[in-house]
Amino acid sequence: MENLGYYNGKTGPIEEMRVPMDDRSSWFGDGVYDATISVEHIPYALEEHIDRFFKSMALLEIEPDFTREDLAALLPSLVKQVDSPVQMVYWQVTRGTAPRAHAFPRGAKPNLWVFLRPWETAAGKAGDPARGQKLITVEDTRFFHCNIKTLNLIPNVLAAEKAGKAGCDEAVFHRSGRVTECSHSNVHILKDGVFRTAPEDNLILAGIGRAHAIARCGELGIPVDRTPFSVAEMMAADEVLITSSGVFCPAVSHIDGRPVGGRDPALAGRLRGALIGELWDYIAARGGQADYTKYML
Amino acid sequence: MENLGYYNGKTGPIEEMRVPMDDRSSWFGDGVYDATISVEHIPYALEEHIDRFFKSMALLEIEPDFTREDLAALLPSLVKQVDSPVQMVYWQVTRGTAPRAHAFPRGAKPNLWVFLRPWETAAGKAGDPARGQKLITVEDTRFFHCNIKTLNLIPNVLAAEKAGKAGCDEAVFHRSGRVTECSHSNVHILKDGVFRTAPEDNLILAGIGRAHAIARCGELGIPVDRTPFSVAEMMAADEVLITSSGVFCPAVSHIDGRPVGGRDPALAGRLRGALIGELWDYIAARGGQADYTKYML
Repeated sequence: MENLGYYNGKTGPIEEMRVPMDDRSSWFGDGVYDATISVEHIPYALEEHIDRFFKSMALLEIEPDFTREDLAALLPSLVKQVDSPVQMVYWQVTRGTAPRAHAFPRGAKPNLWVFLRPWETAAGKAGDPARGQKLITVEDTRFFHCNIKTLNLIPNVLAAEKAGKAGCDEAVFHRSGRVTECSHSNVHILKDGVFRTAPEDNLILAGIGRAHAIARCGELGIPVDRTPFSVAEMMAADEVLITSSGVFCPAVSHIDGRPVGGRDPALAGRLRGALIGELWDYIAARGGQADYTKYML
Repeated sequence: MENLGYYNGKTGPIEEMRVPMDDRSSWFGDGVYDATISVEHIPYALEEHIDRFFKSMALLEIEPDFTREDLAALLPSLVKQVDSPVQMVYWQVTRGTAPRAHAFPRGAKPNLWVFLRPWETAAGKAGDPARGQKLITVEDTRFFHCNIKTLNLIPNVLAAEKAGKAGCDEAVFHRSGRVTECSHSNVHILKDGVFRTAPEDNLILAGIGRAHAIARCGELGIPVDRTPFSVAEMMAADEVLITSSGVFCPAVSHIDGRPVGGRDPALAGRLRGALIGELWDYIAARGGQADYTKYML
């Protein structure tokens, strides 16, 4: 199959999938999601993504009627049904199906959704990493639950649209000058050999890609500083980098039309190389075999 | 019929209605809504609600493929198909159906949704107005687009759930002590004969019920003050009142378990009487005939 949708056990091409009108996503966006890249039909860092998904559910008090193990079995089995060797693997849970009323519906069971698409047509991926990424800055008008990966994404939609209209790849949010993250990725800077990234509070979604970058910094002897940084510091950084699950630390070349970074390409390259290397080790350790040069990651 | 769902021209019992998985509500909550009460099969203040709906769409850059007049004809025609004389009339538009990607989908047409339910089983209505409403206070953690009636309602859901768990009717949001509004209604106070209500900025949804209360205050000679007020001022007010479309200014008796208001019941009663009177005039002017005593509004 070219793509696949799943809803509470039913599967089919996404275009043909239908869901109940009274699913809590319809009226409230009342659910959480997670997503990763799958290469050679092996979902990358799946356990970590499932852990975060369970954390998101707990924070919204959504009680799953499935286990981590159920999901760890289900997702790879679905991935095998889709042809493309590189896929976006997306799943979400909503708080059930019930007549619209704000408070939690009593007795409703959560609904489990999945979709899989070829990576090159999937949402939210960065542009060609071989060229510099272009960003715009946007005031962060989001709510104070950004640590939960929810379906309430209108400000992210508006920011991504604004970036696209400006011919850019992503939008960087800032709260009165303090950089938080991008509309669907995390942003970091290198300055004087130090990797700086926003702290893990309710203003950012702590990405799995970000966690991997921090871990690789540890191995590479790159100090990590989680002190908040400003837009001005970002504009003056040696390098500006973005990460998400499937976006492996490409460097940013322009922000708001002004050139940024490019002053420590060796260090940025080492970090990026370590992240890509980790991906291939993960895939190879699970039996994946590939001409890695054919994938642009 | 007992209730009715509508999606892009298709209708049926809500429980049987299905929508495409790739509707933008599913992944982003990317849409806006409006709602009112219908009495004697006449939707109340419909024109004002449609105006606000078009404002919400404009603020989110959703371009409708229907006119105000289309909606003003459609909604009453659907209301007639549902038996109950008192209904919740709810409609929303989502940004279309397209593969998940944050930026606006090119060429996608917006999707129009409607549901109708008997008022007594519908969502978001306040309790029996004859008794005092009970509220809790909750820190307002929402985004800075509260002036748009969007489907990104998780903080409202969490607040309403917290209120219900505390045995209360509603939750009052405040930003560091400044009262904004409730989880699905506006809140106001009477103090020394003055009606105080939060200003119309991006921190509140300017309710139609609120607009009617302000207009009635004008007629009754009650001064209106739109200066922000604090939780402390609310706790010390002569009366605390809530409004929404279909909630006609009942008084609040308790907040966070402490007795509030009750010091100017005559003025609160005059305002409430004027609002209810306006409703019946509206219904009667459009041919509605009813034993008004049978409806608890």
